[in-house]
Amino acid sequence: MPDLVMPDTVELIRAKRDGRVLTDDEIRWLIASYTDGTIADEQMSALLMAVYFRGLRPGELRAWTAAMVSSGERLDLGAVSAPTVDKHSTGGVGDKVSLILAPLVASCGAAVPQLSGRGLGHTGGTLDKLEAIPGWRAALSATEMIEMLIEVGCVICAAGPGLAPADRRLYALRDVTGTVESIPLIASSIMSKKIAEGTAALVLDVKVGSGAFMQELAAARLLAQTMVGLGGEAGVRTTAVLTSMDAPLGRAVGNAVVVEEAVATLRGEGPPDLVEVTVALAREMLALAGIDADPAAALAGGRALGRYRAMIAAQGGDPDAELPRARHSEVVTAGQTGWLRGLDARAVGVAAWRLGAGRARKEDPVSPSAGVLCLAKPGERVEAGQPLLELRADDGSRFARAREALASAVEIGREPPAKAPLVIERVSG
Amino acid sequence: MPDLVMPDTVELIRAKRDGRVLTDDEIRWLIASYTDGTIADEQMSALLMAVYFRGLRPGELRAWTAAMVSSGERLDLGAVSAPTVDKHSTGGVGDKVSLILAPLVASCGAAVPQLSGRGLGHTGGTLDKLEAIPGWRAALSATEMIEMLIEVGCVICAAGPGLAPADRRLYALRDVTGTVESIPLIASSIMSKKIAEGTAALVLDVKVGSGAFMQELAAARLLAQTMVGLGGEAGVRTTAVLTSMDAPLGRAVGNAVVVEEAVATLRGEGPPDLVEVTVALAREMLALAGIDADPAAALAGGRALGRYRAMIAAQGGDPDAELPRARHSEVVTAGQTGWLRGLDARAVGVAAWRLGAGRARKEDPVSPSAGVLCLAKPGERVEAGQPLLELRADDGSRFARAREALASAVEIGREPPAKAPLVIERVSG
Repeated sequence: MPDLVMPDTVELIRAKRDGRVLTDDEIRWLIASYTDGTIADEQMSALLMAVYFRGLRPGELRAWTAAMVSSGERLDLGAVSAPTVDKHSTGGVGDKVSLILAPLVASCGAAVPQLSGRGLGHTGGTLDKLEAIPGWRAALSATEMIEMLIEVGCVICAAGPGLAPADRRLYALRDVTGTVESIPLIASSIMSKKIAEGTAALVLDVKVGSGAFMQELAAARLLAQTMVGLGGEAGVRTTAVLTSMDAPLGRAVGNAVVVEEAVATLRGEGPPDLVEVTVALAREMLALAGIDADPAAALAGGRALGRYRAMIAAQGGDPDAELPRARHSEVVTAGQTGWLRGLDARAVGVAAWRLGAGRARKEDPVSPSAGVLCLAKPGERVEAGQPLLELRADDGSRFARAREALASAVEIGREPPAKAPLVIERVSG
Repeated sequence: MPDLVMPDTVELIRAKRDGRVLTDDEIRWLIASYTDGTIADEQMSALLMAVYFRGLRPGELRAWTAAMVSSGERLDLGAVSAPTVDKHSTGGVGDKVSLILAPLVASCGAAVPQLSGRGLGHTGGTLDKLEAIPGWRAALSATEMIEMLIEVGCVICAAGPGLAPADRRLYALRDVTGTVESIPLIASSIMSKKIAEGTAALVLDVKVGSGAFMQELAAARLLAQTMVGLGGEAGVRTTAVLTSMDAPLGRAVGNAVVVEEAVATLRGEGPPDLVEVTVALAREMLALAGIDADPAAALAGGRALGRYRAMIAAQGGDPDAELPRARHSEVVTAGQTGWLRGLDARAVGVAAWRLGAGRARKEDPVSPSAGVLCLAKPGERVEAGQPLLELRADDGSRFARAREALASAVEIGREPPAKAPLVIERVSG
């Protein structure tokens, strides 16, 4: 029967478009209906673009995130007696902190239930990195995951399809519709998964800089505050740390090379920037877990390496296996003598991506062996002709485009760079 | 191969979202790719929402409209020796002007190639109205249409599927994604069809008021200016007239009842407001066609009725056939004695819609006999208990919801309403 009332979906799109605040019921209906297919992709993408422009008020964002959590199951980690605490990074270049942090914090007495993702674009995904280890598998059942938390104290695995399925659909849609870059949409995507994961506490590593999603401090701070607020409202004690991502973290960018650097760091031989960020995050995690321990000493003493090996082995990986090695390598050398003032994280990330370490589409495979090694880091003295970067690929035709990405990545000058803090600030609830 | 270059579509959505001006080539690519299915609905709807917020610059809108015209064929009316001139209305309640105007202007020596649409929502479509005439068919080939222009001087028919197919897809998408209310999108939709239709000149009736799409004068004026500009740039001499749509035009709202009122007007017995608007538009059309004739005299003398009968008959309709009559009717009476100060066009349109005269979904049928007759119009004296509106429907269960729509439609007061002009202003190139 003809009716003044338009189909609800269109009414709600128009309401958000025109700046009206949506009610909790309306938001619940929108997310549930999109998840069950009642709302079509073309309607949700228009709504997402309206959200991009209009934002979400705190109450709307709370309801939106809760609806995403409710779209699937929420894991019950009650069987784990140790305090649970997780970490999430918004993504950076050379970021292998999770591989170190999970066993490190577990070795101090917490349980780390880390559900991770795959990479898309110039930042790598933790699962892609670990899959460079022969035999290692990302998919675990909830029961297997909980068993690992009890027995090993940490687990890094893929989120099952039943966890925040609304986010899975929304994320794929945002990716193809130009609606990724919205703070409420980013915050609800990250936090819905972490809330559903069942962790009692969470530390967020919000990266800021050229290689990060957030290139401006103010935007990164707002994202951090938004996520910390959402965590607290959902009963997950949450702290955020803003860390710099202007240069790659550590020296290795890619997959197998990153695993090797993580293992070296667990042996107490990590590069200072990687150690600094890892320890800062570990301290926050332990504080939230109520555990009084010194992660710096644990890391330097190599005491977490056993946990790492147990974690890898429990998921079918051979921690002693030799990792795949690329068939080809080339170096980028310094064009002049001086101080290495900058090594652009984004450019290095794009180069590694083009070498095969990352994917352009979700269904693409990644090369475990492709990547970039930073042979010098900002703040070091370099001589003209000295190798600065080592590029690795299985396919020799990939070097040309990787070099293009690096065209203006390296800055060498007569003065050393100003010392900028790696750990910029802390946002707590 | 992984690549920094995102898929073009996402890049262009983000560009528009961020306020970058799109190039002509980009816009051509977007419209062509959407028409051929390369760009998915969910991507186009996100782009449309970005256009809603960011608008289109004049150059972008010109390219966008041209691309929509180029998505299909452009009719060649070169075989028609009389000057061609069309009229388009942005839609109002009780608007039956086309049915009168096409034969009227044809009777003065112009050829009127009127491609029309169906109604959706509370404003009716010209084709729905004419389909109340037994036998009349809306679909004509281009050849049949041109023959009618040559032999009868006017034709009202459906646009073929080859005419601006991009608009067909975009319009359907906008309808379900909350992206209808955008001046550049409205202007390009209307003008692309009219440019493709091949008319040499065009008069736009831009309705303003409660029953119109544009409820604010400033927005209506901007839409009129935008469309007049687009027409001129495409070689179609275009003038716009802003006319009031606060009360229904004439007394009949629906389908068969509207045809009956149009025929009465063609006999010289039309209600004054309908005659005033029709004559004003006819004058503009004749001026653009370069024809010196007095449409007021032609209308008052009933000289265009023969053209109307020929036009209906040429499309299989029987101009003498009795039109369908509704099985049920009810009246709405005056609640008090006084001056009828207002009769809300939108409310009356919604009531007619709910009675069955309009459709909620494109695929719904309309009832030819349902509708509303305005027994009194604003400015008239009314007595308590006097019938003001006659509601007609085939399905007696529809009256209740129609009456709900009319709850505050009628305003009766002690003073007569201020006299407001029907023809508000004129916008020319």
